[in-house]
Amino acid sequence: MNKVAIVGTGQTKFSKNEGNVEKLLFESSNNCIQSVNDCNLNNIDGVLVSTNNNSKYLGAILSESMGIQPKISHSIEHLCSSGTNAVISAYAYISSGLSDIVLVSGAESATNPGQVLEWDKSRGEFEHPIYWGSMLTKSHKRKFQTTEEELAIVSAKNHKQAMDNPFAYSNEPRTILEVMNSKQITDDLRILDCSRSCSGGASILLASEEKARTLSDQPIWITGIGQKTTSASFTKNILEDIKSTRLAADSAYKMSKIESKNIDVAEVHDAFSVCELMAISELGITSNDKSGEFVRELFNTENRMINPRGGLIGAGHPLGATGISQTIEITNQLQGKSDRRQISNAETGLVHNMSAAGTSSSIMVLEN
Amino acid sequence: MNKVAIVGTGQTKFSKNEGNVEKLLFESSNNCIQSVNDCNLNNIDGVLVSTNNNSKYLGAILSESMGIQPKISHSIEHLCSSGTNAVISAYAYISSGLSDIVLVSGAESATNPGQVLEWDKSRGEFEHPIYWGSMLTKSHKRKFQTTEEELAIVSAKNHKQAMDNPFAYSNEPRTILEVMNSKQITDDLRILDCSRSCSGGASILLASEEKARTLSDQPIWITGIGQKTTSASFTKNILEDIKSTRLAADSAYKMSKIESKNIDVAEVHDAFSVCELMAISELGITSNDKSGEFVRELFNTENRMINPRGGLIGAGHPLGATGISQTIEITNQLQGKSDRRQISNAETGLVHNMSAAGTSSSIMVLEN
Repeated sequence: MNKVAIVGTGQTKFSKNEGNVEKLLFESSNNCIQSVNDCNLNNIDGVLVSTNNNSKYLGAILSESMGIQPKISHSIEHLCSSGTNAVISAYAYISSGLSDIVLVSGAESATNPGQVLEWDKSRGEFEHPIYWGSMLTKSHKRKFQTTEEELAIVSAKNHKQAMDNPFAYSNEPRTILEVMNSKQITDDLRILDCSRSCSGGASILLASEEKARTLSDQPIWITGIGQKTTSASFTKNILEDIKSTRLAADSAYKMSKIESKNIDVAEVHDAFSVCELMAISELGITSNDKSGEFVRELFNTENRMINPRGGLIGAGHPLGATGISQTIEITNQLQGKSDRRQISNAETGLVHNMSAAGTSSSIMVLEN
Repeated sequence: MNKVAIVGTGQTKFSKNEGNVEKLLFESSNNCIQSVNDCNLNNIDGVLVSTNNNSKYLGAILSESMGIQPKISHSIEHLCSSGTNAVISAYAYISSGLSDIVLVSGAESATNPGQVLEWDKSRGEFEHPIYWGSMLTKSHKRKFQTTEEELAIVSAKNHKQAMDNPFAYSNEPRTILEVMNSKQITDDLRILDCSRSCSGGASILLASEEKARTLSDQPIWITGIGQKTTSASFTKNILEDIKSTRLAADSAYKMSKIESKNIDVAEVHDAFSVCELMAISELGITSNDKSGEFVRELFNTENRMINPRGGLIGAGHPLGATGISQTIEITNQLQGKSDRRQISNAETGLVHNMSAAGTSSSIMVLEN
């Protein structure tokens, strides 16, 4: 198996502006190519697009817009974790030898129709993520005595961290009290507990070991991959834990030969504040009953180890771009390029993304 | 690199009935699993869906419906060639070692909204494939003195061959005269020159060499892969030839170490009758100026070498299922399981699929 590295990154600002998905793909791809040493577009032999947008043939459209004539191009969709799925697919193409250099670009428009699944409707399932977000929150509070303040800390921390991310949707700091007093959406969720749909694009360039050395002075290696789909819909099982994350983490740690204690920095999927607490537990960084305390300690000591770019709550959640933006953050952290967000001496990082109440998860371990 | 084999196949009938994409995915997947020796669903670690349908999270929905909890699942879209892209993606996952056994399932509903690209509209491009089909036909007639009768033979041949395909959309033989007298759509195209959108599902199971030996007595090996995207929209370049097919074929032949003369049977993308003539030329099976004559000879001698299942014109064109159905046909031919459609002593086969006026192509060489 060929080793695979990330050699370039580029993003657009995440915003509530109406976004054109083709333009967002192009803009972030262009920024990504600019970040690479002398990248000859003729050598890019894969272009993968990640989006939930209904437009078709975007892989070819982005390729033509960029002046790339790749071997492989197509679009990938898996709701919130489309982006990490596309990055892992690029890894597979390069590792298998079918491709040498792959551009992965994700984008979403804030005006994209909501992700209501006809299949859920037909089964009488919840039509909106807010309901499972609320049930997960209620369950966590009951089972682990998690307080409303601890949940609010997740949001306050991530809003604060997003202040140093120039691409973030949010540019307002939010105090714990502001979160706790924000508009109530359900019994257990307030508006500031929720990530926001928005427009945004994010792109990375991946390469085989041989090509990576010429394209980047600081290639970042994908050393661990884990993925798991346990179901498609909210089930009782989900309330207890996020099994897909635990199983995916096991695979990723095994492949990379690291343990959770080795992780210096992680981007985790905080679609709702409770998700960050659950994710860091399933990843083995803490445990569910200590997760509130863990996050409080991070907040009080200004330790940005979890979600340094502001997570989904602070940075915004343009579905197709999210997983790629998470991967960019960890890449830049391991390259020491994260300016005021920089974690000191970060050598090993983790990306965690998931979809639909944690019914599926994708995890990558990155190392410099 | 791990070798990759096709170890199971399953389809639904292609029809004009309104199809539910989730049901079509399930039905063909179920038929596929039934075709495999003692397949333990717990061992399937990838589920890839190919479709142009706007429903989301179908990889997880199909997995839950089937009782599979894979590592990898997502949807892949690349217009007409979504299916071959998904098969090649599965190849990459297995070859890279990220996965051992992958189910690839494609489906389309006849009620799916048409594939009009907003991007084409914004550029003043043709909104419907019929226009580029017509221009390709006009160009071929002018450049290679191709006659209307030769074009009609493609359709008559494929309709005839579809009569022996129980899953085909068409169940009517069509004479050359019937094709030539069918309803005129443009100056250069009649209705029977065109493939039909329809409902249908097709699934295959792929496995690593180690797993393939236990799952099938007749694994069929993917020995060559070639892909190319030259642009996204119809360009002058396209009128001259289908460059993406020629370049993809070069890669596939090189990887598999075969030449075009070694091909015993091929499924090629005949969205319009002229496409079959162009495809067999770009694949090196004949040349453009002799392609009409070549197809006439096949028709007169009842040689089913090209499009034995009836091609897109005879079998129907449910976009997401097409490439997978083509792959199934070649697999079954190489296994000697094609009943009345069987090519004798078929050992090497080829699958050719393309999208949007041949702006991208995917090719696979299969061997038994």
